[in-house]
Amino acid sequence: MTTQQLITQIHKKQSFLCIGLDTDLNKIPTLLLNNEDPIFSFNKAIIDATHHLCVAYKPNTAFYEAHGVKGWQSLEKTIQYINSNYPEIFTIADAKRGDIGNTSSMYAKAFFDDLGFDSVTVAPYMGKDSVEPFLEFEDKHTILLALTSNEGAFDFQTKKVDGLELYKTVIETSKSWKNSQNLMYVVGATKAEYLMEIRKIVPDSFLLVPGVGAQGGDLQEVCDFGMNENVGLLINSSRGIIYASKDEDFAEKAKAEAEKLQQKMAEILSKKSQ
Amino acid sequence: MTTQQLITQIHKKQSFLCIGLDTDLNKIPTLLLNNEDPIFSFNKAIIDATHHLCVAYKPNTAFYEAHGVKGWQSLEKTIQYINSNYPEIFTIADAKRGDIGNTSSMYAKAFFDDLGFDSVTVAPYMGKDSVEPFLEFEDKHTILLALTSNEGAFDFQTKKVDGLELYKTVIETSKSWKNSQNLMYVVGATKAEYLMEIRKIVPDSFLLVPGVGAQGGDLQEVCDFGMNENVGLLINSSRGIIYASKDEDFAEKAKAEAEKLQQKMAEILSKKSQ
Repeated sequence: MTTQQLITQIHKKQSFLCIGLDTDLNKIPTLLLNNEDPIFSFNKAIIDATHHLCVAYKPNTAFYEAHGVKGWQSLEKTIQYINSNYPEIFTIADAKRGDIGNTSSMYAKAFFDDLGFDSVTVAPYMGKDSVEPFLEFEDKHTILLALTSNEGAFDFQTKKVDGLELYKTVIETSKSWKNSQNLMYVVGATKAEYLMEIRKIVPDSFLLVPGVGAQGGDLQEVCDFGMNENVGLLINSSRGIIYASKDEDFAEKAKAEAEKLQQKMAEILSKKSQ
Repeated sequence: MTTQQLITQIHKKQSFLCIGLDTDLNKIPTLLLNNEDPIFSFNKAIIDATHHLCVAYKPNTAFYEAHGVKGWQSLEKTIQYINSNYPEIFTIADAKRGDIGNTSSMYAKAFFDDLGFDSVTVAPYMGKDSVEPFLEFEDKHTILLALTSNEGAFDFQTKKVDGLELYKTVIETSKSWKNSQNLMYVVGATKAEYLMEIRKIVPDSFLLVPGVGAQGGDLQEVCDFGMNENVGLLINSSRGIIYASKDEDFAEKAKAEAEKLQQKMAEILSKKSQ
């Protein structure tokens, strides 16, 4: 998917919501556990109920790898289901990969070509030649970890490297990499005050913002500081949406939670265009 | 496996060799390609031929994930084969994972409990709470990326953070994490001059050193600067051993290459104990 196609979808759906498919057998309705593939059954129901309210789905690969071969089958079925039924959806493999060049090439091929994801999250620690193999793929996107939403972000990411915080150094440096137009960045929502700083470095890039709760408490702040002319934001919510209920009505309740966020987004977009 | 058991194996086998199982369908003998599971067939032959010459095997998970569900089956069969037939071998999942706390827990469970690896490589960018879930497992080891062997290592790892290089900051900081006795570190062999510096920070930890070629050119230098009282080194070689031949004699040739390195290691250990 091209960036322009993503932007078109955002305006059409009046939403820049990404739903995290962090599907955990301990948290899904017990009534699904007798299905042949409970993880896929759950994902399919969530996707069917919410696809018109969001522009992206983001399965975190850890939740699938935790179940070995069966988990990978669930992941494959999920991405195939989205691509076949809702090709307008932007898909993110939240894999946080990063390895030496030829190994990164294998990961890139696996996620982009074989599985058919539009994008993958990548860790920056190993530098340019660990990320560029992902950037080679046309109309595919590499979402680089910049500033994450966990406490450990303060261990290294916010430390100053030659006078500039590491996360800023990562973003600044990545701009010089080949095909850097295919980069997006992960920016933790709990640090909305950092968004202004990041926008000075990458005014045009898309930012993937995790950590916005179902209540959308931080949503306005994130938009105030992070939104650009093309919206430029994907706001992720996982548990607040997909685990809204553990009963038979789980898909319906997920839809209701997604709708709340989508409506707030529609309001923000409408104010912005005035 | 405990660290002491690993040290015992090193002395018994007179080897601190780790063989990287970076098994690539394009590089293995074509005669294996008609087998039901060519990757596992190749690994099995390599393991049977070399297990007495090395103390560790390290499959890089990218090479398996590149083949989706089938690749995960090959990985599962490989680790099961090692654990069943050669339980004295230390196994490393070269996965370079790292995510927020509860997600790292899932990865840790998958690699340690479900697959049964002794250790896993982990990226440090997301800090303490992304690594500590791996450290909780008794007699399991977390191998933290410190200084990698690729060119991109100079993009961030060697940059100064408040006056101290990032890779040193990572190592120093990690010492304060809970259960840090379960940490080992990845240190790129092409930077033997850095080993002395690293040994000042972690004199007792094991270091996993990739990038030593089959010729063992850097081996002496790495040992001069990196070896400690308990050896404290695992030297990895992948392609130089496992792709020594593309013909029927591939396992035999791999054995011969592993033997060359093992003999150099035995010499070094013998000199050291004099």
